[in-house]
Amino acid sequence: MTLTIADLARALNARIWGDGSLIVTGAAEAGQAGPGQIALATSPAYAGRLAPGGMALLAEDADPEALGLKAAILVPRPRLAMAGLTRSFDPGPGIAPGIHASAIIDPSAEIAADAAIGPFAVIGAKVRIGAKARIGSHVSIGAETRIGGDALIHAGARIAHGVSLGDRVIVHSGAVIGSDGFSFVTPEKSGVEEIRETLGERGDIRAQHWTRIHSLGGVEIGDDVEIGANATIDRGTIRATRVGRGTKIDNLVHLGHNVVVGEDCLLCGQVGIAGSARIGDRVVLGGQCGVSDNIFVGDDVIAGGATKIFTNAAAGRVLLGSPALKMDTHIEAQKNIRRLPRLYAQVAELRETVKKLMQKDGRD
Amino acid sequence: MTLTIADLARALNARIWGDGSLIVTGAAEAGQAGPGQIALATSPAYAGRLAPGGMALLAEDADPEALGLKAAILVPRPRLAMAGLTRSFDPGPGIAPGIHASAIIDPSAEIAADAAIGPFAVIGAKVRIGAKARIGSHVSIGAETRIGGDALIHAGARIAHGVSLGDRVIVHSGAVIGSDGFSFVTPEKSGVEEIRETLGERGDIRAQHWTRIHSLGGVEIGDDVEIGANATIDRGTIRATRVGRGTKIDNLVHLGHNVVVGEDCLLCGQVGIAGSARIGDRVVLGGQCGVSDNIFVGDDVIAGGATKIFTNAAAGRVLLGSPALKMDTHIEAQKNIRRLPRLYAQVAELRETVKKLMQKDGRD
Amino acid sequence: MTLTIADLARALNARIWGDGSLIVTGAAEAGQAGPGQIALATSPAYAGRLAPGGMALLAEDADPEALGLKAAILVPRPRLAMAGLTRSFDPGPGIAPGIHASAIIDPSAEIAADAAIGPFAVIGAKVRIGAKARIGSHVSIGAETRIGGDALIHAGARIAHGVSLGDRVIVHSGAVIGSDGFSFVTPEKSGVEEIRETLGERGDIRAQHWTRIHSLGGVEIGDDVEIGANATIDRGTIRATRVGRGTKIDNLVHLGHNVVVGEDCLLCGQVGIAGSARIGDRVVLGGQCGVSDNIFVGDDVIAGGATKIFTNAAAGRVLLGSPALKMDTHIEAQKNIRRLPRLYAQVAELRETVKKLMQKDGRD
Repeated sequence: MTLTIADLARALNARIWGDGSLIVTGAAEAGQAGPGQIALATSPAYAGRLAPGGMALLAEDADPEALGLKAAILVPRPRLAMAGLTRSFDPGPGIAPGIHASAIIDPSAEIAADAAIGPFAVIGAKVRIGAKARIGSHVSIGAETRIGGDALIHAGARIAHGVSLGDRVIVHSGAVIGSDGFSFVTPEKSGVEEIRETLGERGDIRAQHWTRIHSLGGVEIGDDVEIGANATIDRGTIRATRVGRGTKIDNLVHLGHNVVVGEDCLLCGQVGIAGSARIGDRVVLGGQCGVSDNIFVGDDVIAGGATKIFTNAAAGRVLLGSPALKMDTHIEAQKNIRRLPRLYAQVAELRETVKKLMQKDGRD
Repeated sequence: MTLTIADLARALNARIWGDGSLIVTGAAEAGQAGPGQIALATSPAYAGRLAPGGMALLAEDADPEALGLKAAILVPRPRLAMAGLTRSFDPGPGIAPGIHASAIIDPSAEIAADAAIGPFAVIGAKVRIGAKARIGSHVSIGAETRIGGDALIHAGARIAHGVSLGDRVIVHSGAVIGSDGFSFVTPEKSGVEEIRETLGERGDIRAQHWTRIHSLGGVEIGDDVEIGANATIDRGTIRATRVGRGTKIDNLVHLGHNVVVGEDCLLCGQVGIAGSARIGDRVVLGGQCGVSDNIFVGDDVIAGGATKIFTNAAAGRVLLGSPALKMDTHIEAQKNIRRLPRLYAQVAELRETVKKLMQKDGRD
Repeated sequence: MTLTIADLARALNARIWGDGSLIVTGAAEAGQAGPGQIALATSPAYAGRLAPGGMALLAEDADPEALGLKAAILVPRPRLAMAGLTRSFDPGPGIAPGIHASAIIDPSAEIAADAAIGPFAVIGAKVRIGAKARIGSHVSIGAETRIGGDALIHAGARIAHGVSLGDRVIVHSGAVIGSDGFSFVTPEKSGVEEIRETLGERGDIRAQHWTRIHSLGGVEIGDDVEIGANATIDRGTIRATRVGRGTKIDNLVHLGHNVVVGEDCLLCGQVGIAGSARIGDRVVLGGQCGVSDNIFVGDDVIAGGATKIFTNAAAGRVLLGSPALKMDTHIEAQKNIRRLPRLYAQVAELRETVKKLMQKDGRD
């Protein structure tokens, strides 16, 4: 693939400065670019690191001439331009076209003519795989599951039966979609049911075994969803677990049974969402956040890393901490905790002073 | 599979009301049931959503006639009945009977005649697989491992050598059982050993490399245990890591080397238990809980989501927070933190008042 | 493999006591040793459990004669000796020599003559695999990836294209190395970008979709690194994600794109490190720790379990809590929180007393 600066600028719908005929073979961070590489200066701070005589992607108010560049692409939002630029140079996972001879495909599966399926893949009965979908090596897909067009399923992903993935969905290696829910019941009321009512008080403890509630629901994943490496999404009990269009899920995230996640959310690494919780649209949960079962997190909520949400969260809230508080309340609370040694000293001093006043008062 | 309401009631050992000859093809949530589906109304609140003219699973004190139903199954504990009902309709993972031609099985392995083994499975030397066990596609089982009868190992699970799984054990996709423990040692005392003694104070810091302690112990999993997708259970160093009968382990849970978990526990999503910790019987750890290495968590302990247990926990305790406190103590502590702004204001005011009293006192 | 006590002592470079000709067939914990097993008494407390008439590994100041042993190996640091001893008895994962007939290997791959490759492995174009490397069953290795000499890749690990693993690297089952980074951008400023500037205040909320930034960088893993089961390491955006020589990574750990981890670190189970964070040398992060994106954790930092590091951490710090504080500050803060009920009572009493003093003062 040979690209010139002019090709790239056109692909990014961006303004060009300098010599548009220079050939670009790759991208590098500012200060790291070798011959043929375009340097990325996504913020003014990075522009200072650019070597003169090179090519760069710059914010539109930068001055490529003053920086001594040979050519530049000027964009209003460099981070957005990086999306297009990196797409141009991504070689992808290298799944060869066609169906590999070693793949085992049930005769009742419907595979689009231009789909690609890698070595040792196993495709179950009545599976439907859309146009241009790419299925990596060692992937398994259970019966009656549907994979949308242009989907990309990386090596070793596990997609169970009765799952539906939309168009352009990306599933990374090791992700498991459609595992059984974690749902068990005891013959009589369990300790967990009891303390939910009493907030911690327990009566007699009885030894009981757990009986399994089977998961009959499937999983429905909307268009343009991405699911990270080794993430797990359990199937629903009776209805489907659902992830809305455009939501991005990072590595090692866990979605329990019956969870409903809205559209355009970001769930960062190791987030866990317990069974039957509902997450609105455009919600962003930082790494290692947790959401309790059966609660609701409203649209546009943003939670910082490691926030643990135990109760319903109103739309638009910005949350932090465990238990989750509004971000400013949490920051103030932490400050108040750090100031406690002084408060203890002040109260001790006050007690001393008041004691003296009382003694004096007694003597008066 | 054709089931009537009467068949289902018999399977659930439950009372029937109305027309027992109606055919049930599936289950649905209250208000979502289509033709042939039995609606589940596991709590009185859901009963109001039932469409008249249908079938439902109800608590025994409900009135199916008043609800306008055609037929109903009446049970004392609807959630328990759901276990039996969902089992009746679960098609399962669809592992075909027999041994798939592509599976690679060591000649010394002993496979029960009625066990099923899927495509691309790899079974090592001297492995024993019990009656009716089902092994999914892409599963690997290391040498001398034993899989109990009626066990179900989902696609892509990894079971190492020297592991023992009891009867009816379920292992979900991507789970890894018998990986090496995370156990390393430095030539001289390490910083971690030092601060465990000093609670944070450090002397001179020496650069040292880590030397590996190999894991010679195996893993022993009791009967009726379930292990979630992408969970990991490390083998023991010298003795086995152990999980007791009836314990259920959710997705992405991590059990370190030498851990011993008792019977009938529930370990929810993303729980982590560090090396050599011991967990009693009937312990319930909510999602994202953590347990430090080498400590003991007593029988019947229940810990809410994201509780981090750093020290031994007495039997029967209900815990919450990080560090873990008794649930009511934790709730009070959080309340006390939220009330701090008022306390700071009160103390400031007191200081002002007492200062005035002192000045006045000085003047008197 | 037949080993005598004398062989073992020689391998451990240790002093021998008693009958060096005794044959050792395995190891056991103190009090658990059967015939032929050497008991491990790594601390004086365990020595009391030793059965007389056996063999033991002891600290050099122990008295094997008084303990009634037949033979003993005496070492200055028993935990260190365990490393050598367990290595002597580890049968390993049992990957047969040579290349299994079912493995699919691109003709352009360069495989060292003495490397071993298991069943159903898939090796991509231009992959280079070093001398004596062992690749387990079901492993996939993407194009142009390099695996060092003596490396051990366990069953089902996923190594993407453009990754480099050093010599003697161990990758456990289910680990994913080189998955795409979690990097997305909105056309206009997103809510996350906004609150990073305002610390929680938000203007108008706009519905926006996420556009993907592709990951062009690879992953570079140094010599002697170990990567746990189901851990995930994302590739870098433009430059490589890097893990330094000798660092050990436990199960279910997540390293985001562009992360740089130094040498000789320990990252325990379920640690998460967000994109572009940099970790120094010899850093130890306990289980479930989290590190925010783009921050720096200095050399020799030690963080206790579940510590969440949101800001740069100076070299040598010992951290605990969420948000991370110096360990002693955190312990004091927790103590201060637990003492709050008494403080509230004292302030209430003071207010009462001062109120009376004021009234009296008014009356005087």
